[in-house]
Amino acid sequence: MGKSAVTIDIQNTLQALDLFKSCSSSFWNTVKQYGYSSRIEKGRVLFLNDETAERIYVIKSGWVRLYRETLDGAQATIDLVGNSSCFGETSLFNDDRHTYSAESAEDCELISLPFSLIKNELFSNQNFVLSILSAIAKQSLQQTREIEHRTLQTAPQRIGCFILRMVDAEQKNDLTIHLPYDKSLIASRLGMQPETFSRALKKLKDETGIAIKGAVIEIESLDTLSSFTCAGCSLEFPCPDLKRKNR
Amino acid sequence: MGKSAVTIDIQNTLQALDLFKSCSSSFWNTVKQYGYSSRIEKGRVLFLNDETAERIYVIKSGWVRLYRETLDGAQATIDLVGNSSCFGETSLFNDDRHTYSAESAEDCELISLPFSLIKNELFSNQNFVLSILSAIAKQSLQQTREIEHRTLQTAPQRIGCFILRMVDAEQKNDLTIHLPYDKSLIASRLGMQPETFSRALKKLKDETGIAIKGAVIEIESLDTLSSFTCAGCSLEFPCPDLKRKNR
Repeated sequence: MGKSAVTIDIQNTLQALDLFKSCSSSFWNTVKQYGYSSRIEKGRVLFLNDETAERIYVIKSGWVRLYRETLDGAQATIDLVGNSSCFGETSLFNDDRHTYSAESAEDCELISLPFSLIKNELFSNQNFVLSILSAIAKQSLQQTREIEHRTLQTAPQRIGCFILRMVDAEQKNDLTIHLPYDKSLIASRLGMQPETFSRALKKLKDETGIAIKGAVIEIESLDTLSSFTCAGCSLEFPCPDLKRKNR
Repeated sequence: MGKSAVTIDIQNTLQALDLFKSCSSSFWNTVKQYGYSSRIEKGRVLFLNDETAERIYVIKSGWVRLYRETLDGAQATIDLVGNSSCFGETSLFNDDRHTYSAESAEDCELISLPFSLIKNELFSNQNFVLSILSAIAKQSLQQTREIEHRTLQTAPQRIGCFILRMVDAEQKNDLTIHLPYDKSLIASRLGMQPETFSRALKKLKDETGIAIKGAVIEIESLDTLSSFTCAGCSLEFPCPDLKRKNR
């Protein structure tokens, strides 16, 4: 791809996201100059927690793991973000310091934009401020749910919830789900040790009749899976935030 | 207090908060008409998760517990918020539905403002949008830390962290801390069963030499407490967010 093809590609990808829908023409002109797209191999650290933030990132393909690490090397996965997600933007409100570390969990294609560009738009375009606000509020709501689940759900229920969030609620039975990334990453996303994850997955299978073949999960009865899983949650399946996403 | 004294009191309390610093004069005129202050006894449910939100709240005194509850009655405490904190504002970005339930954990004095008032200001005053954005981003950062701690810290470390967050880092040793609310609430704030909390508190005492007399904690050596606690965290004591708060 030549430079201009890359630029058009970046603009098209960003404009498809709610976050950038209200950006001004001067923003898009600067994106042409300073935005860039890059391929990153699996396992590369993109930035570290508390480092000075210089760019924000949008994922075109692949998965990125956001995490925090103690001095002696233990890691907590905060989130795994995929296709069309933005990350690194929380540092805008943390004195320009990153609030987590980020690492490519697979080969990725990432678009990145300099912080100065985002800030200029933030100071000159009120609609963009509202878009950022809405994005951060959604993240905050997701984290509230995560704290609830880590307190109340059992490990099998947490895996059940992860699976249910990929389900199309309209189709009731004999559903097939493809896991988006490998099981060790799912375990880390759910804050479980690999052994806990294996035991919990077996329990979930026994309780709900789901079948697991590699990365494919077959759900015999959605009602059985959701009544087992959502007993440990404040909401019922399908969750309001999923309904809103599909609206 | 007569009506006008109450009104001046509400305005003074709100103006002391970062969130309301940039509000317009028309906002303050409407606060005079529609804001109100009320005393709430301990244990009253103020609103429920997913209910339609009609007002936002600011705490003048006392503590409010934010929580989510499953259908069979298990509760996860999301946060305990006190003096000068705002709650209920996240529903602004969740189709006007509350994202948690709220209950007074003590006798409280609360100021509440109708949602319409906040929305009018949001649509007409860009500085207020930035203030809300900054408040929600801080909350999101705190939740990121909470998820990290629930994954990596042991129960004694989590209690140590709760104590350290009340310490003035300038004073090094022979510190005395007063617990802000009773131990069963601290346990629920930290997502622990009361028995787990008691065992963990004893372990923390043995490991760090702190002394506990009712609601008073005496810290013999801040270095011992912080090196024990912060070994399970991505940050070192004193945390950057505490430093920023005191700046």
